[in-house]
Amino acid sequence: MPAYPIRVRYAETDQMGVVHHSAYVVWLEEARVRYLEELGLDYAELERRGVYFPVTELFLSYRRPLRFGQVARVEVELFEVKSRRVAFSYRVLTPEGELAAKGHTSHVPQDAAGRAVRLPGWVHERLLRALGGDS
Amino acid sequence: MPAYPIRVRYAETDQMGVVHHSAYVVWLEEARVRYLEELGLDYAELERRGVYFPVTELFLSYRRPLRFGQVARVEVELFEVKSRRVAFSYRVLTPEGELAAKGHTSHVPQDAAGRAVRLPGWVHERLLRALGGDS
Amino acid sequence: MPAYPIRVRYAETDQMGVVHHSAYVVWLEEARVRYLEELGLDYAELERRGVYFPVTELFLSYRRPLRFGQVARVEVELFEVKSRRVAFSYRVLTPEGELAAKGHTSHVPQDAAGRAVRLPGWVHERLLRALGGDS
Amino acid sequence: MPAYPIRVRYAETDQMGVVHHSAYVVWLEEARVRYLEELGLDYAELERRGVYFPVTELFLSYRRPLRFGQVARVEVELFEVKSRRVAFSYRVLTPEGELAAKGHTSHVPQDAAGRAVRLPGWVHERLLRALGGDS
Repeated sequence: MPAYPIRVRYAETDQMGVVHHSAYVVWLEEARVRYLEELGLDYAELERRGVYFPVTELFLSYRRPLRFGQVARVEVELFEVKSRRVAFSYRVLTPEGELAAKGHTSHVPQDAAGRAVRLPGWVHERLLRALGGDS
Repeated sequence: MPAYPIRVRYAETDQMGVVHHSAYVVWLEEARVRYLEELGLDYAELERRGVYFPVTELFLSYRRPLRFGQVARVEVELFEVKSRRVAFSYRVLTPEGELAAKGHTSHVPQDAAGRAVRLPGWVHERLLRALGGDS
Repeated sequence: MPAYPIRVRYAETDQMGVVHHSAYVVWLEEARVRYLEELGLDYAELERRGVYFPVTELFLSYRRPLRFGQVARVEVELFEVKSRRVAFSYRVLTPEGELAAKGHTSHVPQDAAGRAVRLPGWVHERLLRALGGDS
Repeated sequence: MPAYPIRVRYAETDQMGVVHHSAYVVWLEEARVRYLEELGLDYAELERRGVYFPVTELFLSYRRPLRFGQVARVEVELFEVKSRRVAFSYRVLTPEGELAAKGHTSHVPQDAAGRAVRLPGWVHERLLRALGGDS
């Protein structure tokens, strides 16, 4: 499964001495962007072409704390590709490979004005291929 | 229902021109802290006494974008109080009172070392009273 | 001097147990926006009219830590108004009124494309009046 | 000069369509931490031994915007090492090697209670060696 290393930043810790739960949300996004890039879908380029993927649903379950000085890994997997909805699941792992958190996000394709649109054909096709495991 | 105003900060916007989805996570926390304060539970004081409430589960569903220049309102409601688990639900409203997002968080009481503990009696009691609507 | 209360957010703390130094940068911005608003300059409205004030210089000197549970105050003062450069100074105060940090920011007016422009006359005039202490 | 790549995160952009100025503050810290690591000074380990390096002064001058989809580079250089004060300078470069921002930070060594202390001998020595360019 595609996985991306994320170094914990000092600024991401809180006074409990561990990574604040909001930092994971940014990590999922970072991992998703890198994964799309690997599928040939450059997110910055998609936006320049007028296709946006705002998060419409977010779920995270936190299992083990992460700490400054660690490099976490975020695994990403597509699990739903429809013309009007795309969803990803994630596993955040400790350096030892234990589960730190798991989650998912849903996305509804939009145009620049924020109107829901269908996925452009070539994007849809590429995501379907990745969903099928051919990526 | 208790509700707290949150001014959108410029830094919370992203290049889509709306509030980034990670900012809401911080807002829920801010609303939760103010709500606990109103129940007589000062979160900073609780931590000094060795009681922590890390987020163990987070869910958010985003409905309408919020923008810089707006003041959102975050409604908070306790919906579960057990000796080992507390959960809150939230509604984030636009200035016009429309639903911008809804969500919930779960929390497992811990000590300073990160071990799950029972809620101290006086905290448990106060939360139960709030759950019953007597707050 | 205009001053704005800022509640420390839990997410703004770090593992040293105090507010992370990057949070102050966002607070200065928040105080600046509120101050401009009081001068009749709604920042969101300015941007809709095509006037942007990106930060071109930032200085902060940190004197005393701030902690979760505290409400800081941020004082703002205009100290330079030119047609192509505006600068503000700031003092961040602890709840007891002691100096937590001081700093300044400089801003160069730009259009939507990021080109340096002259301040629109009505904005310039209003800032000059504030600089003179008539606001 | 030691330099570290930083991928711009989507969450770091703002509604001007460029990286928000507060994100650079976190990048400087990230580059500083990696640089110290290369000098054999693991920041997480230093804190466990009771040595903290809070930022006491921060300066940033912003020259060119950075955008989502870019990988910036942050160059770090030690420029002052005293037993009670350490300072670093930074240059943030665009992918094309142009100057996006430059800045510096000062740090005063502290113990866990926030009291200023002298740098431990072995840390002082290693930093002096790096300052001399022998690292």
